[in-house]
Amino acid sequence: MMLLKQIKEVRKLVKSWRKEGLTVGYVPTMGALHEGHESLIKRAVAENDRVIVSVFVNPTQFGPNEDYDAYPRNIDKDMQLCMNAGAVAVFNPEPEEMYFDDKSTSVSVSGLTDVLCGAKRPGHFNGVCLIVSKFLNIVTPDKAYFGQKDAQQVAVIKRMVRDLNIDVEIIPCPIIREEDGLAKSSRNTYLSYEERKAALVLSRILQMVRKELDNGERDANKLREMIAEELNKEPLAKIDYVEIVDSDSLKHVEVIERSILVPIAVYIGKTRLIDNFIYEL
Amino acid sequence: MMLLKQIKEVRKLVKSWRKEGLTVGYVPTMGALHEGHESLIKRAVAENDRVIVSVFVNPTQFGPNEDYDAYPRNIDKDMQLCMNAGAVAVFNPEPEEMYFDDKSTSVSVSGLTDVLCGAKRPGHFNGVCLIVSKFLNIVTPDKAYFGQKDAQQVAVIKRMVRDLNIDVEIIPCPIIREEDGLAKSSRNTYLSYEERKAALVLSRILQMVRKELDNGERDANKLREMIAEELNKEPLAKIDYVEIVDSDSLKHVEVIERSILVPIAVYIGKTRLIDNFIYEL
Repeated sequence: MMLLKQIKEVRKLVKSWRKEGLTVGYVPTMGALHEGHESLIKRAVAENDRVIVSVFVNPTQFGPNEDYDAYPRNIDKDMQLCMNAGAVAVFNPEPEEMYFDDKSTSVSVSGLTDVLCGAKRPGHFNGVCLIVSKFLNIVTPDKAYFGQKDAQQVAVIKRMVRDLNIDVEIIPCPIIREEDGLAKSSRNTYLSYEERKAALVLSRILQMVRKELDNGERDANKLREMIAEELNKEPLAKIDYVEIVDSDSLKHVEVIERSILVPIAVYIGKTRLIDNFIYEL
Repeated sequence: MMLLKQIKEVRKLVKSWRKEGLTVGYVPTMGALHEGHESLIKRAVAENDRVIVSVFVNPTQFGPNEDYDAYPRNIDKDMQLCMNAGAVAVFNPEPEEMYFDDKSTSVSVSGLTDVLCGAKRPGHFNGVCLIVSKFLNIVTPDKAYFGQKDAQQVAVIKRMVRDLNIDVEIIPCPIIREEDGLAKSSRNTYLSYEERKAALVLSRILQMVRKELDNGERDANKLREMIAEELNKEPLAKIDYVEIVDSDSLKHVEVIERSILVPIAVYIGKTRLIDNFIYEL
């Protein structure tokens, strides 16, 4: 298991693999790894000859009042998880390795980023697009693995990769949940005991919506009302957004006629949690 | 000599070269090739095992009132020049191959693009950054060759490549001139006989400035005045800009203390011509 701190080390390693004709899988993370990340790494290991995981809490995707400083960091534990899951190398650069003081290039995706988390977190997806394009250019993987929990991120990255002709296959992977249904997230560690219980409201609501869809409900506004009502029952939860959108374009849907994404973002105390599901039609 | 129309053909070709361990040089052009381009291709051929030239009049870097439709196109002549210069393949995609109708990703470089041509041609460098990042991702060359005539373009592309960690070496190449000093340009074909004579004002002014610098002049404003005076003598020339800027940051200079770029942009009739030199200190 290798811990790489420098871009040139990563390039050298990947080039040596390429010379041997080996395929490369890549899992970008911000560390604080949990079973969700583990499932991405294991899938990458199953589908590629060599797997690199990056662990980098990317400053440019946090807003000024967000949790960049507080975001959990534990590289030793992360290294252990990566090794056990079968990764060969962890790339854990310092911010100075990734960003010049006079950095002046930005990458942005319009449309897809104006809604949902993009509307609530201005600049967030510009930060994501910049760092992901940088990492993809450094690692040059055959396949890169992203968690479907960040559904909008997956849609944005797929669009960016298509538009910039980055030669990589983006593989979205299913959400991994706790036994009681809460989607795994590094931010779950912020929750108090009471908040942890209240956080179940996200998965409970999504299950409820799925059931209504299974029963044939196609009026998105009816579903939205139902969701708002259910959320109001949970005093510790403050809704950030709940939406029903087209699963490709992320555009607002009134009548459900094709595959949709149902994303939800809720503050539980000060912690912002997200969850979603895709309903195929 | 191969003519490639599709992205996947380019990828396949380059991957076959990579398997043989060959190095790849790349020359991006908008076609209408002249001795300036030829010098880039020959340098690329001298420094790489295989050379690809792209010929693509990129719509996204032309403003609404610019010469996209009128821009000279002659792929047969261009192919001949590429072949004679030693290139192995020409990539000449249609606009539909390069851009999706719902393209939504943009790449931009701030600071460096707010001045000179960037100030006069809003959106131009966003178009350049987008297409160059796409081509670099498609061709994945070891080295890419750009003419120093577009000095600002070179500075912007170098910054973008650095900031996005694109794994390519950008090689700027000297300006090639007609015997009488006019910088070679595809747009020179627009000039009437009288305009062609008037166009010499650009190189004449740059020579004059260089001489003053050689004589020890370090007051940039004195040089600017001298330039304006000289330009006024040529009735067919309408100044777009003349500047004296830092050669790295492209920032305005008052007292010349380190290496500078002296770029000039002039309308001769309806044709906009540019020229420049770098003065090393």
